[in-house]
Amino acid sequence: MDHSYSTPGAPHRDGVPEHGRVPKYYAVKTHITALLDELGQGGLLPTERDLAVRFGVARETVRQALRELLLEGRLQRMGRGTVVAGPKLEQPLALASYTEGVRRQGRRPGRSLIGLDRFPCPEALAPDVGAQAGEPVWHMERVLLADDERVGLESTYVAVARVPRLDEEFEPDSSFYGYLRERLGVQFGDADERLETVLATPREALLVGTPPALPMLLIHRVSRDTDGRPLERVRSLYRGDRFSFTAHLRG
Amino acid sequence: MDHSYSTPGAPHRDGVPEHGRVPKYYAVKTHITALLDELGQGGLLPTERDLAVRFGVARETVRQALRELLLEGRLQRMGRGTVVAGPKLEQPLALASYTEGVRRQGRRPGRSLIGLDRFPCPEALAPDVGAQAGEPVWHMERVLLADDERVGLESTYVAVARVPRLDEEFEPDSSFYGYLRERLGVQFGDADERLETVLATPREALLVGTPPALPMLLIHRVSRDTDGRPLERVRSLYRGDRFSFTAHLRG
Repeated sequence: MDHSYSTPGAPHRDGVPEHGRVPKYYAVKTHITALLDELGQGGLLPTERDLAVRFGVARETVRQALRELLLEGRLQRMGRGTVVAGPKLEQPLALASYTEGVRRQGRRPGRSLIGLDRFPCPEALAPDVGAQAGEPVWHMERVLLADDERVGLESTYVAVARVPRLDEEFEPDSSFYGYLRERLGVQFGDADERLETVLATPREALLVGTPPALPMLLIHRVSRDTDGRPLERVRSLYRGDRFSFTAHLRG
Repeated sequence: MDHSYSTPGAPHRDGVPEHGRVPKYYAVKTHITALLDELGQGGLLPTERDLAVRFGVARETVRQALRELLLEGRLQRMGRGTVVAGPKLEQPLALASYTEGVRRQGRRPGRSLIGLDRFPCPEALAPDVGAQAGEPVWHMERVLLADDERVGLESTYVAVARVPRLDEEFEPDSSFYGYLRERLGVQFGDADERLETVLATPREALLVGTPPALPMLLIHRVSRDTDGRPLERVRSLYRGDRFSFTAHLRG
C-alpha cells in the first residue's frame, strides 16, 4: 500500500478507485494541482490548449479538470486568464459578526444592500424573531464583500418592533451587530446554527457573481439577546470555493 | 415586491434573477419541489418522460432539474425509481463521536473498515498526533453508515505509541472514542475543527457510493486529551446531500 503523504490529512491513493482505473480527467487534475503548487498564489495558469498539449489529452479533458479546480476554489478567473487562488477564508463559527471574522484575517469586510423591506410576519418565522404572526418584520438582504470581492449573500429577518428605525438609522454597509450594540444597547446572548452545503440558485449566483450550481455553504442562524429574548433569524450563504468555517470544541 | 414566505428562512424571489428571466430548468425545478412536498418522504416521483409531458418541456430540461434535486438531497435513487428523500441528518459539531450523533437521531450508526495500516509519521502530521517524524502512526480508514446506508468516509491518524494494540483489540465497526475511553482511559479534552465543502474524488465517490463530484462536507479535526496532549487527526467526509451540522454558540 502506498503511504505517500503530501498534504497533511489527505487520504492516500486519493482519486484512485479500488479497481485501479483512474479517470483520465482526474489524472490531469492531479498534474495541474502539482503545477499550481509550483506557480504559487496569483500565478497565471497556461491556456487550456497548452495544458492539453503538455499532458497529451483532449481539451475537453483539461476543461473538466479545470472546472472542478474552479468549483473547489483552487483556481480563480481573472480577466481573461485563470490564476492560482489563495487559501479559503476561515470564518469562525462564533457569535462574532461577519465583519469581525473577515477583519481578523486582514481582509476588508463590506456589505452591499440588495433590499430592505417590511412585510407581515409569517407563522413559521414568528417565534424566531419574537413577534406575533402578522406583525411587521424587516427583511434585509445584503451581498457580503471581502476586499470588494463578492463572497456571499445574507438575509436578516428581525421584528420592526425591535429596530423600528432600521431603514432611517442603519448604514447598510456597516455591521448590523455593531448597530444593535452601539445604538440600541442590545447584546447577543446565544445562537443556534445549522450549516449545510447547497447549490446556488440562479438568482443567488447572479447576485454573488458565481457560476450557477456552485456549491455554497449555507448557515441558518437563530439568535437571542442576553435576556434570552428572540432577536433575529439569518440565512447566510457563503461561496464554497472561498470559505471554510472553524470551531473550537471543548469537552 | 413578493413576500411569499413558504419555507422559514428561504429567500423570497428564490431563483428569479433581477432581470426577471427565470431559467426554464429552474422553473421546472420549482414545480417539482412543490410536487415533492405533496408526495411526502418516500413518495415515488413520476418518470422523467411523464414530468416532461406534464410541464411541457424537453426531457433534458427535466433531467437538469432532477440532477440538482438529487445533489441537494431532496431526491434519492431507489432501485430503478426516484423517491422523495427524508430530511438531512443533523450532526452536532461537538466532541461527541459520529456514533453518538447518529444514535441521538434514532438512526443506527455503523462503520465499515477500508484499511488499517501503520506508516512512518510524516513531518506535517507529527505535531497533531504527538509523535516524532518517522515514528509509526496508524491510519485507519472507515466508511460511515447510518442504517446501513453509506453516508461518509473517515480517516483517523493516531500514533502507534498511543494505541499500540489497535490492530488486535479494536473492533472496527465500533466507536474509536468508546475504545479510547473504556480500554485506555483516555478522554477527549478539546479539538479544533475546520469545515468546508469539497467535491468527492472518484475514489471517495466509489467508496461512499455517490455520484462523482457530489458536494461533500469535509471536517478536519485535531484533538487533544484532557491533559492537553495531542491525540489524533481526523479527516471526515460527509455526503452533502445527507448531512447538516449544528452548533450552539454562546457569547
